[in-house]
Amino acid sequence: MSELVERSGVPLPTVKYYLREGLLPAGTRTGRNQAVYGEAHVRRLRMIRALIEVGGLSVTGVREVLRAVDDPGQPGHDLRGVAHCTVARTVRGDRSSAAWIQARATAAAMVAERGWHVHPEAPALDQLADALEALHGLGQEDILTLLPVYAQTADALAGPEVELVTRRPDRAGMVEAVVTGTVLGEAVFNALRRLAQEHHSSLLA
Amino acid sequence: MSELVERSGVPLPTVKYYLREGLLPAGTRTGRNQAVYGEAHVRRLRMIRALIEVGGLSVTGVREVLRAVDDPGQPGHDLRGVAHCTVARTVRGDRSSAAWIQARATAAAMVAERGWHVHPEAPALDQLADALEALHGLGQEDILTLLPVYAQTADALAGPEVELVTRRPDRAGMVEAVVTGTVLGEAVFNALRRLAQEHHSSLLA
Repeated sequence: MSELVERSGVPLPTVKYYLREGLLPAGTRTGRNQAVYGEAHVRRLRMIRALIEVGGLSVTGVREVLRAVDDPGQPGHDLRGVAHCTVARTVRGDRSSAAWIQARATAAAMVAERGWHVHPEAPALDQLADALEALHGLGQEDILTLLPVYAQTADALAGPEVELVTRRPDRAGMVEAVVTGTVLGEAVFNALRRLAQEHHSSLLA
Repeated sequence: MSELVERSGVPLPTVKYYLREGLLPAGTRTGRNQAVYGEAHVRRLRMIRALIEVGGLSVTGVREVLRAVDDPGQPGHDLRGVAHCTVARTVRGDRSSAAWIQARATAAAMVAERGWHVHPEAPALDQLADALEALHGLGQEDILTLLPVYAQTADALAGPEVELVTRRPDRAGMVEAVVTGTVLGEAVFNALRRLAQEHHSSLLA
């Protein structure tokens, strides 16, 4: 296990925690207090840490992502299972109000208008409705004038992102690229967005 | 308080929780068990809920954002204070490894190369370094080929976003637009990005 710590750079107590939570499979026992961990363990360990520490996923979220990763029935390039698991990060209360249902309809209409093929129950549609409802409730509808730009930009980014994933030679590589591309790609983009906002804000100072 | 619940749509136990946590200021006392809440309370309540439920901020994060919002010394259009508060959502462990320091230098170089005016200690630079280090550790450098596209896109979005904020007539309106634009704008964009990824993924199915 000390080799695992050394090779992955993840501290021992964290490794033990992931093992206890069942995120990291146990090594192959070679003696009473000895187990062997392979390259697969190192990779898995790095992925778990990235999802939790960079992506902000919960242990439960990571468990669900790994289940999708390990499910051979899921096509390698299919982002849907993973997106489903990683999107629902926040606990959301009431989704039964008239305002929310209206926002949900707006979200669905927006996707239909762009001709996007999306599952009608996609969690990202609910997440979009959450944000739209909140913006309406706050009277910040002017921000919604950016929606067409956001949708166009998201579309322009998603093409090369998905294309990159399919360049991977095997299913395992594809799935890994989907997970990291979705979660870490979002972290990268959000950080750049904050930096660009700070830059444009400073131009006004 | 029942009027506050009705007008904001936030349930009573949640309102009480926000009051107890000091996020929502107390109403003006009019009797032993009576207090009056005004329009400002309703607005504040909606913002707190949006930051927590849609933006995924912690109570501590919201407290810091509200402190920046209420600080009259901060220029209304300045995104930096708020961005500082809202960016650090995840607990990050070790930022002293050689790999992280290398990633942090890459992040700073990327910003310098684009000519972005950004505080050298901007938390988003650390967040970017976190994501870059994780991608390197996972051997997923191919995703980094998208970095120029991400940076260009972030830049293209930030211009109109900041411009929108400055159109607000008063400081309070500007600050509110900054908070919701940063946090809810990110939620809107991330949801659209997932939907666009699902769409492009489905084209391959």
